[in-house]
Parts: sequence; C-alpha cells; structure tokens
Amino acid sequence: MAGAPRDGEELLPFDPAEGDGPRVAFIGRVRSPWRPDGEHPKNIRKAREMGGAARIELDPAYAPGLKGLSAGQYVIVVYWMDRARRDLLVQNPRHVEAPRGTFSLRSPNRPNPIALSSVVITDLDLEAGRIGIDAIDCLDGTPLVDLKPWLETVDIPPA
Amino acid sequence: MAGAPRDGEELLPFDPAEGDGPRVAFIGRVRSPWRPDGEHPKNIRKAREMGGAARIELDPAYAPGLKGLSAGQYVIVVYWMDRARRDLLVQNPRHVEAPRGTFSLRSPNRPNPIALSSVVITDLDLEAGRIGIDAIDCLDGTPLVDLKPWLETVDIPPA
Repeated sequence: MAGAPRDGEELLPFDPAEGDGPRVAFIGRVRSPWRPDGEHPKNIRKAREMGGAARIELDPAYAPGLKGLSAGQYVIVVYWMDRARRDLLVQNPRHVEAPRGTFSLRSPNRPNPIALSSVVITDLDLEAGRIGIDAIDCLDGTPLVDLKPWLETVDIPPA
Repeated sequence: MAGAPRDGEELLPFDPAEGDGPRVAFIGRVRSPWRPDGEHPKNIRKAREMGGAARIELDPAYAPGLKGLSAGQYVIVVYWMDRARRDLLVQNPRHVEAPRGTFSLRSPNRPNPIALSSVVITDLDLEAGRIGIDAIDCLDGTPLVDLKPWLETVDIPPA
C-alpha cells in the first residue's frame, strides 16, 4: 500500500482494508510459474502465449467442494491480489493516454483486490484438492477465494 | 448461516467468516426490483426476461473510480451475497440429480459469497456515482464490492 501516486492519480482519503466489512477466507493457493522478481505476463492471454503449467491447490478442508467438476470444463478462478494497493481510485497506467478510474481498468490495485480468470480444467485430483488449469497470469502463491463454473448464458453479456 | 443441511449435504467444520483473512470493503449497493419476500429470478437470464430497471449506486467516496466507463460498455458487477451461508461445502439443490460440490455450482452459498454478473451499462451519472444496467438477479440493497470492464480476450475461456 506504499508509494507516491503518479501524475493524475487520485487516492481514497481512507484505507478500505481498515473498515468493518466481512472477512474473506483464503481457501487455497494458485500455483504458477510467475515470481515477483522474474518475468511475468501482463494478462492471461500473454500467460497462455508464454506457457507454463498452472494449478489450483485447495486447503484440504475445502476439497470436497470440488465434487462435480471435471477435466475440460471452464471455470472462473477468483483470487485475492494480496500485493495490490487498495486506495488507488484514479490510475495512470503506462498503456492508457489519460488517467482512468479504477473501475474502468483490470488493474490489481482496487478497493477489493479480487481478480477473475476464465480458464480450462486440464486435470483434477478430487482427493488432493488439486486442479490443473491451462494458464494463469497471477504470481505463484496468490490466495484463492472462489472457483465457479463458467456459464455461457451468464458470463457473456447480452448482444 | 442457520438451518440444518439437506440429505447428502456437507458442512465445513468451521465458519469461514471467523478467520483472520482481509476485510472486504462495501463500496456501494446494487438496486434491483427484487425483494426477499417477493418473486425473484433464479439467474440473470431470468432477470432479463422478467425486466425491471436495475442500477449500481456507489458510495460517494468511490465515485471518481468510474471515470472512463461509458454507456453501452460491458461490465462485470462483483457483489457480496450477505444472506448466504458460508459453511456449505456439498449442496443438494432441487435442480440437480445428486449432491454437488459448492465450486461446481453458482449457488450464493459458498465460503466467500462473491457473485459475478456480466451486464451492459445503459446510462451513467459519474458525479452521483450511479450506473444504470440492463438487468441483475440479486436482491435490492446487495453490497457491491467491485466493478470491472468485461473483456472478450480475458473473460471467454479459450476454445
């Protein structure tokens, strides 16, 4: 949460992490080839191009919740970007021309640093609570908060 | 979080709400025609069929974060289903044949009751922090936790 804002950036006058909202439970970890000090992809499309195995590891208590999933199925991985800053409201990333609101960007920096990746299950071990997935762009060890089946009728907006 | 599980359902041996994870910040509310004691849709497809205006109301502090969004754009509304139970790991909903793991269902009941709806912005008032959307299936007053642009290259899994 440190660091001075860049030109045109705006901060919240408070830290959203310090409120009285409900607590998120970390239910497992995302395993990926990406380390903070190494090369890592900007988005999931780049992660697919770069290759490298990725998987989800659920904490053992949550493993029974995987029953009904199968290889080949599309799922949305919901994770918590625990290195992001939560007070950045208007951002000035290098790839945009003028400062933009956080809610118009997919930046990890947001009041609730929740990220979504739509992926394919490549293999799974229900007993161990492990799911292989085709790719993911987050850092190794990122906390997992949910996993949902991706549904065409729900997850594609109307034409 | 109350109520006995149905046949074949499994509960977590602890309450995920009672852990030491980070706190979610409620950044606004979803406004919808749906009340707990009235008719309400099972999913967003049904909500579209039933009609009825829906909108997002951001708390004033967060309104500057909308800069860069515009009418006609697709967004993912991320909200917190605050009436859900968080300890249900295997569920037996009426529409499935056998009990299924929570992570294979879009049920509101899950360790982190985060829901996603992919919608279209119909109009917006940046100053007031209000966004009209085509439809939504959650109850009126549901807490908002994030808003993200929907991106075809990110939010549709690979073929």
